[in-house]
Order: sequence, then structure tokens, then C-alpha cells
Amino acid sequence: MSSLPSRVDIHEEGPREGFQIEPVGFSIADRAALVEALADAGLHQIQVASFVNPKRVPQMADAAELFAAIRRREGVRYTGLWLNEQGFDRACATASVDLVGALYFYASDAFSRMNNGVSAEAHAQSQRQWLARYREAGLPVESAYVMTAFGCHVEGEVSEARLEQSLQFLAQLQQEEGVTVPHVYLADTVGMANPVSVARRVSLARRVLPGARIGLHLHDTRGIGMANALAALQQGVDLFDASIAGLGGCPFSGGSHGSSSGNICTEDLAFLCAELGIETGLNLDKLIQAARLAERIIGRRLDGRLMHSGLPTRQAAVNP
Amino acid sequence: MSSLPSRVDIHEEGPREGFQIEPVGFSIADRAALVEALADAGLHQIQVASFVNPKRVPQMADAAELFAAIRRREGVRYTGLWLNEQGFDRACATASVDLVGALYFYASDAFSRMNNGVSAEAHAQSQRQWLARYREAGLPVESAYVMTAFGCHVEGEVSEARLEQSLQFLAQLQQEEGVTVPHVYLADTVGMANPVSVARRVSLARRVLPGARIGLHLHDTRGIGMANALAALQQGVDLFDASIAGLGGCPFSGGSHGSSSGNICTEDLAFLCAELGIETGLNLDKLIQAARLAERIIGRRLDGRLMHSGLPTRQAAVNP
Repeated sequence: MSSLPSRVDIHEEGPREGFQIEPVGFSIADRAALVEALADAGLHQIQVASFVNPKRVPQMADAAELFAAIRRREGVRYTGLWLNEQGFDRACATASVDLVGALYFYASDAFSRMNNGVSAEAHAQSQRQWLARYREAGLPVESAYVMTAFGCHVEGEVSEARLEQSLQFLAQLQQEEGVTVPHVYLADTVGMANPVSVARRVSLARRVLPGARIGLHLHDTRGIGMANALAALQQGVDLFDASIAGLGGCPFSGGSHGSSSGNICTEDLAFLCAELGIETGLNLDKLIQAARLAERIIGRRLDGRLMHSGLPTRQAAVNP
Repeated sequence: MSSLPSRVDIHEEGPREGFQIEPVGFSIADRAALVEALADAGLHQIQVASFVNPKRVPQMADAAELFAAIRRREGVRYTGLWLNEQGFDRACATASVDLVGALYFYASDAFSRMNNGVSAEAHAQSQRQWLARYREAGLPVESAYVMTAFGCHVEGEVSEARLEQSLQFLAQLQQEEGVTVPHVYLADTVGMANPVSVARRVSLARRVLPGARIGLHLHDTRGIGMANALAALQQGVDLFDASIAGLGGCPFSGGSHGSSSGNICTEDLAFLCAELGIETGLNLDKLIQAARLAERIIGRRLDGRLMHSGLPTRQAAVNP
């Protein structure tokens, strides 16, 4: 376990992932309370909502009101997600959004065609316009996500060569445009990673983009999400997306894969880090409280484990 | 990942763990169908039921009828659990039970006092009588379990020195009694293990008992069960207990730790092995079907993940 990082940053995705997928809307008050509980537990970057088409995703139509309702905590970034220009404009027009410039690439061509209506190559080229847009807005580009970096349910496994193409494209784009994207995430968008592919693809990303900090966006679709996280930690990965209580899963049947689990669970990942002696800056007791609040709001048993069992005696004693 | 075993044996605990913990009883027909589905998926050792006091655990009162109802598959062992002489006698009197001689030790003194009413030392000494009993019955001793090998919720973490005492006692007992126990399990009875302690304690057990095959009985109490399994696999551990669909968790509040998750999930562990190129002899599609049958019988969403998401396209293609 010698390559374990000494400190890990966990970025919270639960409020967006969790409430976006539910068939009903939840009150601004409840959602703001959850965001506040997450910030109180030490999370310093929280994705609050997405600025997407309110006709297609009515649950997120009140994103601006939600941002306005949150009592902000100093040092915490309250971020939003956008997928097109209109969404970005709405995020820019919302005073309390902490804008984070992000680029998106797809390692799976089939998934890009399904999701974006264009090839992965065409979608990658379109990121030049986002660079221009961010430049115009005075917003530095902080993150690049390679979606479906391990495969997708349409075309199956994505080869390392194909992932390398996406990463090489990003490397060249940075050179041509004179920018450096500090954080590059490998996103296991539909849960196709395993511990070996995590280790190999993190190494690949570091080789192609030696200056970047490599992050992982993992889903626990098939029960090995935490094993994948351990494999990443063993490679020294120190940047993860996660969702409180495992929010973001879809307990309803539908789609070719039926119901599924969401992002890896924030408090369980934080617990793993604590057990490995890795600093996260997070208070496990408060994370558990936030997870239980999420469960009360959603109104059914959520996937997180630590939230249901509580901390072991040992941990309880050392986490005041 | 160089120390990964080429083959892993998974022993199924679900039928006993799962139905024992439920507040209501389930029909013999349903439980027999689940056991048959598990055997059909390739599991070659299945713990069917426990022979415990029917007044205290009425769900298991019909253990003998259940064993009699199962259509047996060749090469599969249908085992039972007993905790005292009466239970052992009942198991012996049930023709269709595959008796497996097992010894139990407790690394946590507080847990032994709570569970057995005697100190861990007194309980360890009592295993001599079990050796005599098994000898009398012509039953070889196959397994020794060190319960609470990582700690317990009463006294917290159990030190490595304390675990070593239990293992040394077993080593000495074997020498004195002229027996060799081939399988020695470290049991994370209440979910206190982490990847570092798994690696360290497996090494410790091998040092004290160089002739034994070390197995792990892991619970996913706090969401890191599969990370612990990966750590064990990385040490070459090739013997695991697991429960289909993660059966054995307790979704009801109660006890000092509220509700909790059960054993690590059989089909998710089998999937992890398959992803790592480790042979298990298990058919993932059939395991998923068995897990879904368990969910239909129990009547609520169970903890397994793969059973809800299905195999990824890649796996589906290679598992006919």
C-alpha cells in the first residue's frame, strides 16, 4: 500500500446526481439543508444542481432559486453543471454559482452519438468553442472529463488505445490553445471499470498528460466501486467525485440495464480513506448525519453502508 | 496485482444468514428453490440452515425438513451450522446434511463473553471437547474460524498480538491433539476490517500457521467489504465466504449500530474475480438469477449491485 496518497480531495456530486434522477421534485428547503449539511461536514466542492433544459429535467428547473437559498460557508465552492450554451448562460447569470470551467470528451464513440448526437471526434472538436467561451467569460479551465473512459453499455469495453486517443487530443488541444487543464478525470460513466483497468488507465493518463492531476469519477454499478477506489488510491490518485449516501442510483427498472447504483458513496469512501490513514478533511460523524438527512428527504433506504451501521468504536473514539 | 490467485473458492452463506435474520419465516419450497439455484450457478458449498434452539430462532426450526426438500446436485456440499452439542446431534441425525467439522475461536474477549457467556480463553479451551466429539463421530476437522479477528463493537479494535494469541492457541492445539486443520478463516464478524489490516493479518496467520489455507469471512458493514476482498486477493487469498445478494444484512434498526449490511455479496465478489481474470467456476448469469430469486422471496430490495445492473456488455459476451 506504499503509493497511497497522504491526502485525498473528494468532490460531492450527490445533490445534483441524486435529485435529478428522482421522478418527483423536492423542496428548495430540503435540498438547501442537505447542501449545508455537506458543507458542514467539510466538503469543499459541492455540485448543487444542473442548468439543463427545464422541460426535459423539471427537477432542476429551480436551480437558481436553490443556489440563492443556500447559506454559504466560507471556503466551499457551490458548483453547477451545464451541457450547452444556454445552460452556461443561466449558470453565469446566477450570482451564487461558483463557476468551474470544464471540458468533456468521450472515449466511446457509440456513447457520444447516443448522448450528444455526434461522434466522439466531433464532440471533442466542439470543446474548442468551449475554450473560447470560457476565455471570453474570463473563466479558467479547471477540469477535463474523459467520459466512458473504461467502456460503455453500447459498445462494451473501450480499448486503451481509444482512451489514449482522447487523452492525446486533449494534450494537443492544450498545446494549440496555450492552456493547461490541471485536473483530468477518468469517468467510469456506466460502471465498466475494474481494479486492473483503473491501475492501467491511470498510468496511461499520467504518461500522456504528465502535468495533470488525475481524478476518478467512479460508479458502483456492479458492486466493485470501492475495490476500484482502492486500486486508484494504491496508484496515488488523490482526487475523487462521490455522492453522499450513494445518491444517483436509479432504483427503478428501466433502460437496458434495469435499475442501478450511483456514484461511489462519499461517506464510505471517506471512511476507507480514514481507515488507510489518508487525510480527507471530512468529519465522518457529520457525513453520516448528512447521508441520513438525504435518506429522510428521498424517503427510501439509500445505498450507503456506513450511514446505516455507524462508525466502529475505534473510529468513533478518534473522530470528535 | 501480481499475487492474485488463479482460482478462488467461494462458499455460500446466504440461505442461513439471510433467512435467519428475517422476522418472519419463509416456505420450505422457496428456500429449497434458492439453494437449488445456487448449486446450479456452480457454488459447491452452501450453508443451508443452522441447527440452533428453535425457541430462540424459530425461522430455523424446520432445518431438517428443508434439507430433505432440496434436490441435491452431485459435487455440492449442503452444510449446516451448529453452536452446541444439541445442534450437532440434530445435524448428525439429518441424513442429507454434509457435516463439516469446524472449530471457533474468539479474538475479542468482550465479544466472547457477550456471545458465549465465557471468556475467549475458556471458549478456546472448550474446542478440545469439540475435537473429541468430532473424532468420536468420525468427522475430520476441516475449518477453524477466528471470530472478531479484526475487532468488535464492544471492545473496538483487536490488536494483532491478541489475534496472534488465538492463532498460536490453535497451532498448539493441533500439535497436542495430532490434528491439522486445513482451512483457517479470519472472520470480520462485525465489519471492522480494512485493506491494511486484512493484508497484515493474513500475513500474520500464514506466519503462525504456515500449513493452513487462509480464508476470509468478510462483512460489508461499512461499505468497504469489496475493497477488503481486493486487498485479500492481492495477498493471494483464495477462499471466501459470501452471501448471495448480500443476504444477511439487517435493514431494521436495532442494536447499538442500527441496521447493517451482511456478508460481502457472492455475485459481486464473483464478478470482481472474473474482472481480475480469476477463475471461480461460477456462472455469473445464473448467480444473478439466484440473487433475483432471493430478492423475490425476501420481498424487498437487497444490497447486491450486479443483480440490479446486470453484467456489462463485455462480460455478457464471454459468459454464455
